[in-house]
Amino acid sequence: MDSPGSPKSERKNHRVAILGGGFGGLHAARILSRSAVEVTLIDRRNFHLFQPLLYQVATGGLSPADIAAPLRALFRRSRNVRIVLGEAVDIDAQRRLVVLRDGEIEYDSLIVATGARHHYFGNDGWESLAPGLKSVEDATEIRARIFGAFEEAEKEPDPKKRAAWLTFAIVGGGPTGVELAGTIGELARGTLRGNFRSFDPAEARIILVEASAERILLSFPPALSRRAAELLGELGVEVRTGALVTRIEEGRIHLRCGAGDAAREETIESRTVIWAAGISASPLGECLKRTAGVALDRMGRVIVEPDLSIPGHPEVFVIGDLANFAHQGGAPLPGVAPVAMQEGRHAAAAILRRLEGDTRPLRFRYRNRGNLATIGRSRAVADLGKLRFGGFFAWILWLFIHLLYLVDFENRILVLTQWAWNYWTRNRSARLITGAPREKR
Amino acid sequence: MDSPGSPKSERKNHRVAILGGGFGGLHAARILSRSAVEVTLIDRRNFHLFQPLLYQVATGGLSPADIAAPLRALFRRSRNVRIVLGEAVDIDAQRRLVVLRDGEIEYDSLIVATGARHHYFGNDGWESLAPGLKSVEDATEIRARIFGAFEEAEKEPDPKKRAAWLTFAIVGGGPTGVELAGTIGELARGTLRGNFRSFDPAEARIILVEASAERILLSFPPALSRRAAELLGELGVEVRTGALVTRIEEGRIHLRCGAGDAAREETIESRTVIWAAGISASPLGECLKRTAGVALDRMGRVIVEPDLSIPGHPEVFVIGDLANFAHQGGAPLPGVAPVAMQEGRHAAAAILRRLEGDTRPLRFRYRNRGNLATIGRSRAVADLGKLRFGGFFAWILWLFIHLLYLVDFENRILVLTQWAWNYWTRNRSARLITGAPREKR
Repeated sequence: MDSPGSPKSERKNHRVAILGGGFGGLHAARILSRSAVEVTLIDRRNFHLFQPLLYQVATGGLSPADIAAPLRALFRRSRNVRIVLGEAVDIDAQRRLVVLRDGEIEYDSLIVATGARHHYFGNDGWESLAPGLKSVEDATEIRARIFGAFEEAEKEPDPKKRAAWLTFAIVGGGPTGVELAGTIGELARGTLRGNFRSFDPAEARIILVEASAERILLSFPPALSRRAAELLGELGVEVRTGALVTRIEEGRIHLRCGAGDAAREETIESRTVIWAAGISASPLGECLKRTAGVALDRMGRVIVEPDLSIPGHPEVFVIGDLANFAHQGGAPLPGVAPVAMQEGRHAAAAILRRLEGDTRPLRFRYRNRGNLATIGRSRAVADLGKLRFGGFFAWILWLFIHLLYLVDFENRILVLTQWAWNYWTRNRSARLITGAPREKR
Repeated sequence: MDSPGSPKSERKNHRVAILGGGFGGLHAARILSRSAVEVTLIDRRNFHLFQPLLYQVATGGLSPADIAAPLRALFRRSRNVRIVLGEAVDIDAQRRLVVLRDGEIEYDSLIVATGARHHYFGNDGWESLAPGLKSVEDATEIRARIFGAFEEAEKEPDPKKRAAWLTFAIVGGGPTGVELAGTIGELARGTLRGNFRSFDPAEARIILVEASAERILLSFPPALSRRAAELLGELGVEVRTGALVTRIEEGRIHLRCGAGDAAREETIESRTVIWAAGISASPLGECLKRTAGVALDRMGRVIVEPDLSIPGHPEVFVIGDLANFAHQGGAPLPGVAPVAMQEGRHAAAAILRRLEGDTRPLRFRYRNRGNLATIGRSRAVADLGKLRFGGFFAWILWLFIHLLYLVDFENRILVLTQWAWNYWTRNRSARLITGAPREKR
């Protein structure tokens, strides 16, 4: 500001704003925290959430704090990193300004990593009937619904109504849907055994609904999708592919099964429906469209340049679930943690390189180290490119990788203790029904 | 039912209803689970809560599930114990009937252990301004307010307003108030050090307000009250005895300090006020007054017979915080966990003895094994009758006893891991700001 100066002093005064403390924002901030730039990390929450394990909170296996790390604790020793708890409502790319609900923040470089929310394809009324799983509050709400349904079943004398309480429909056969369905299967057949006096929890029906005609886990090779469906079957989960949700109402979900002339309507009486289907990008993409003219894809994601910046604004980067990066040929990169982490580190490196005086764009390359999905206790599928397998060893690999990536060291110990215990006892002690009583079921 | 039969068959058909799964109800149910009677344990929540550690949840040291044990898991193997999730709204002692919000339960013997809630002495409007600490939801709300206040302070440029965010007033100098004040003191001076960029958390003022003129911790001997005040002072807590709360409003608390002519009004600008003062008994006491004619004390507690039953109804027992037991001379027994546990076991034994044919009332005797209060990391006061001391060894004793009494084995390991970690690092990783955004601050 006060002088053009050497690259070093320029770096010192360079202000980087990062929107979002998820995997992308966190990894960008970590790289930048070791440099001389001034970092402002803005998040609506005061913690980083390890989202891949959120389904464990929703099913009573872990507590929210086990998979959350306070952002301020993570950057306690980085004096050049300032955490701001706030919600970004607009970005003015021309004036280089982030507008918060209660203030403004100027930047020289910007990293937008605000992710995505679940999306009901225009049926927003479904949200209260079929909550999705993105936040800690979503997870504790779903937890209350799952365990509350078993409680209602215990009190319900009418067998038909009881069956509706014991029917769980999970919409969406991606990794989250598969993980939820598998874990609820284990709850019913393992954890809750002997817990009730008027029914056997193993009577519960768990139905995984997938719109695609062929298979679940579309991001995996077909053989692993088949293996996953097999493993889910062992846990008592009914997998329904080619089933489109047409309507959700209180206690009931309507499907259209099959295609063309063979299509038929089906109604499932279920008191617990969980949404793991649609995703739409953060509304900040729209702000960038308005003030910087970026193009958005069908899901609202920002189509980024090969270096993750946006056209005409080499100082603005969009990463993680909000970005559509399709420069390696084919489909955009999936919305998973490894993509966001690598993109975050890349954007940080690109900013530092520009400050060194090298203004050539730094092309991003994603290194796919594999793809994993877990299906309950001691079952998973792993796609490591050439090596593809499912079962116990895939689960061990999954376990190892997830512990490795849990950001906070204490959390690792806690999660390991709890998992080891859950594994041996099949118990899940975090199955609390908490929160304000729901207005309506 | 089908035959008058021997005591054994009578025991088999004897229906015991227990209202409340706190310390009293839980320990009664445990004794009865080993007999042949039919037990129905009714609670609004699906878990037993280890309430003495709730202040640790409110200050981000532990997660709710660490101090909660699912009731169904605890009685999984006791086929004669049935858990009902429900709220008792009335008791008809004549018809031997408990009325739930959604049903009725008949009993032959009844144990009422529904405890107490906080009480604002007729100022119910204070509840939203100064929440009390009784439930998991209370604890997460207080946690959000404490850590939210530090976040607001970070964003507040006006030093006067910032000081109000950094002022914490705890009303009530009993064990809960002392524990909360001490722990917030540690947060400010230890855990949060280096976490903020626009102020030093050690600037925070923590004020413990006690109405009694002489001292805090009135249930302890005066020397230990003095020691506790000293230990709180070391943590930066200002102890204000003889200070009566006259009004609480948004951002401000009004006190009348001193008595008689020397009394003066004082206003403290504080954005975070926590209520640890008044307690009033569960409204089921009123039901027993109406249908069984019991006498209630000033706090709404049921005045019980020497055997913990109520006059004229040897089959109805009232225990724990809802009971006023004053048959050992002097004041009623205090509302602490050891009293409730011993009373629960006693009521269960009395029921079993009557079923054996011995109808003489079984007198309850409380065995006071001591009284402990903790004042943050590595400080406590202990009153073991002849032995009275404060400091590190009192804290070690407190730690040991609390771990011993944590009902669930897994919880003990988790709590120990987390505490050991908190102890060495002074970190508190469960400091999440969660829950629906408050309408108003």
